[in-house]
Amino acid sequence: MLTLDKVYHAAYTLKNVIRDTAVIKSPDINPESDVYLKTENLQITGSFKVRGAYYKISQLSSEEQAKGVIACSAGNHAQGVALAATANKIKSLICLPDGAPISKVEATKKYGADICLVKGVYDDAYTKAMELKEEMGYTFIHPFDDIDVIAGQGTIGLEILDQLPDVDAVIVPIGGGGLISGIAFAIKSLKPECKVYGVQSEGAPSMYNSLRKEHICNLKHVKTIADGIAVKTPGDHTFELCSKYVDEIVTVSDDEVASAILALMEQQKLVAEGAGAVSVAAAMFNKVDIKGKKVCCVVSGGNIDVTILSRVISRGLLNTGRSLSIKLALTDKPGQLEAVSRIVAGLGGNIVSIYHDRYDLNIDIVSCILDLRIETRDHEHIRSIVEKLKAEGFKIVD
Amino acid sequence: MLTLDKVYHAAYTLKNVIRDTAVIKSPDINPESDVYLKTENLQITGSFKVRGAYYKISQLSSEEQAKGVIACSAGNHAQGVALAATANKIKSLICLPDGAPISKVEATKKYGADICLVKGVYDDAYTKAMELKEEMGYTFIHPFDDIDVIAGQGTIGLEILDQLPDVDAVIVPIGGGGLISGIAFAIKSLKPECKVYGVQSEGAPSMYNSLRKEHICNLKHVKTIADGIAVKTPGDHTFELCSKYVDEIVTVSDDEVASAILALMEQQKLVAEGAGAVSVAAAMFNKVDIKGKKVCCVVSGGNIDVTILSRVISRGLLNTGRSLSIKLALTDKPGQLEAVSRIVAGLGGNIVSIYHDRYDLNIDIVSCILDLRIETRDHEHIRSIVEKLKAEGFKIVD
Repeated sequence: MLTLDKVYHAAYTLKNVIRDTAVIKSPDINPESDVYLKTENLQITGSFKVRGAYYKISQLSSEEQAKGVIACSAGNHAQGVALAATANKIKSLICLPDGAPISKVEATKKYGADICLVKGVYDDAYTKAMELKEEMGYTFIHPFDDIDVIAGQGTIGLEILDQLPDVDAVIVPIGGGGLISGIAFAIKSLKPECKVYGVQSEGAPSMYNSLRKEHICNLKHVKTIADGIAVKTPGDHTFELCSKYVDEIVTVSDDEVASAILALMEQQKLVAEGAGAVSVAAAMFNKVDIKGKKVCCVVSGGNIDVTILSRVISRGLLNTGRSLSIKLALTDKPGQLEAVSRIVAGLGGNIVSIYHDRYDLNIDIVSCILDLRIETRDHEHIRSIVEKLKAEGFKIVD
Repeated sequence: MLTLDKVYHAAYTLKNVIRDTAVIKSPDINPESDVYLKTENLQITGSFKVRGAYYKISQLSSEEQAKGVIACSAGNHAQGVALAATANKIKSLICLPDGAPISKVEATKKYGADICLVKGVYDDAYTKAMELKEEMGYTFIHPFDDIDVIAGQGTIGLEILDQLPDVDAVIVPIGGGGLISGIAFAIKSLKPECKVYGVQSEGAPSMYNSLRKEHICNLKHVKTIADGIAVKTPGDHTFELCSKYVDEIVTVSDDEVASAILALMEQQKLVAEGAGAVSVAAAMFNKVDIKGKKVCCVVSGGNIDVTILSRVISRGLLNTGRSLSIKLALTDKPGQLEAVSRIVAGLGGNIVSIYHDRYDLNIDIVSCILDLRIETRDHEHIRSIVEKLKAEGFKIVD
């Protein structure tokens, strides 16, 4: 059973292992509330997962420790278990589907785990892990549905209350629900008037659906930029704890998450993964009622592939009106490009790329296509540029 | 005159204004030494500059404060002065060249400064600032060559000794030299056996040259990815302080800086600008003798344009062997693509994009070009893929 004692015991056990991550004020996330970030993306291994994994492993009997642990994950849980096992001087074996990104496999190896690449997808790796557990006597470390794991994640709740005693609300990402179960339990036990909000991705609303229907629901498909919280089925423990301690769960779209990732990079110089940024997205886009409140968003992790980050940057710039891609059909006569440049510059836009194509089959033979990318201030700025171009007789094509 | 008293006084004055930024262990920067990061990129305004600007402004007389301050900068200094003036409840005017990026102008406005956009380049903005200073009686806030500004930056030295008392060496970026002058003075005053190393960009080695030639040298041109330290001439004060207190200055290349920026993002989830990452680049590429030492790299700022960041990511991946772009000339017969895919996959490479072109004029009419981007582990991995492709008869083109 989860008790406050257990969460305090986890905090004591973790003291010399993990970082007491900073809470950073982030005034521009939402102008109407006082937003802070609990920066678990700066935690060792790049996510909070090491807390639960370490506490769980530290509580195993010496016979269990001697046999070693096994987990199935291509993400933060794998790295958390690997580091936690190595720090406890025991063996760990991580099963991953063989299509897992090289960077994740390397990171997990680096923390000292043995790797078992399994042909197929996640479910195949899971089946293999279960077989090996039976065969070899390993202890399986569940990513979220385990009371010790939940107690470990709950230490974040204690730290938030310590770092920000007058906090009014905490916003927490939800995948399987281990993180929010621990945090909500700790916070509601100590400061019941503090709200605890959960956030899921629109494309993977398993706990959201389950709480609405008041029983555990299973999703057939999940699809989201926040792959760290793409979980099809909540756990039994986590469903029960969320039902009891979480005030409300909301969802955010991939575009909202991309905007949040970009805001964290630009405003706070922090790299967050999609799953880590959903809490910030909820605050940015007023998904929960935080007007006038002191709010702490848990940024749960930062392990995002840098190539995905590049794509998120481009998308985020478009979403927030900071970049405009526009195609103009020009009559192919001199002075047209100069006229366009003059209009854009006159309104304070900054042309960053031009692509000029005379061979587009979609258009008239006398015309050519001018493809522009313009650095802009916001959506209003984009509107003014587009309207001015139209008013001066330029034809915008799709 | 710079005294330890003044630095302590600056620290006291700054206590409730700035963040006491974390020192974070960063074990993978250099496997042979114990590397820590002083995260001034997480400072308010995204750089250390607010320290010196705030202390300087706080020390002005009430007549000077009533008239307001002026500065000339398109970067971190502008934002530092703007915030510092606003926090001291006085007016600030920032002169910028009219080509300055929209994002920088907006950020400076946001902190409460008035903006004067000056037609031309930096030197024109500077001339205008000097005119306005004379005309209006504003106090000019120099970005580095000012004892109060230097004392403000020196507070970082005090914090490092407090957070990491057994530090053996500190590595600090150098532009005009204000940051390192303050830090070196504070550290050498309290712990003279601690080494203080400075880092400049290969493309802007003004202090590096000046110390070698033992007099202030002026650079005609500067060109570097680390635009925050692209300074043509050191200051009088900073030259003198660096001569006296800095152990050694080294330079790093743009490619080394890009690799450091990428390492900070991937390993530590921190966004650093080029100028902020030169210290980490020096530690990564063994520019200074830190083997077996406990080292603190000052990551001085994080204000990098996200579009530049995207380019740095691509470049960093190429530099570190994590990405391979390769063109193969194929004979245009069936099964070739399948053979290439098999070879790459067999060696654990992950093909992320394919571009197939039959109309390249550089090659034989019967051939076609296959342009591949492959996700790889390291340079060794790349070599093995390239050699295998060659051994199987594929022709690699440039």
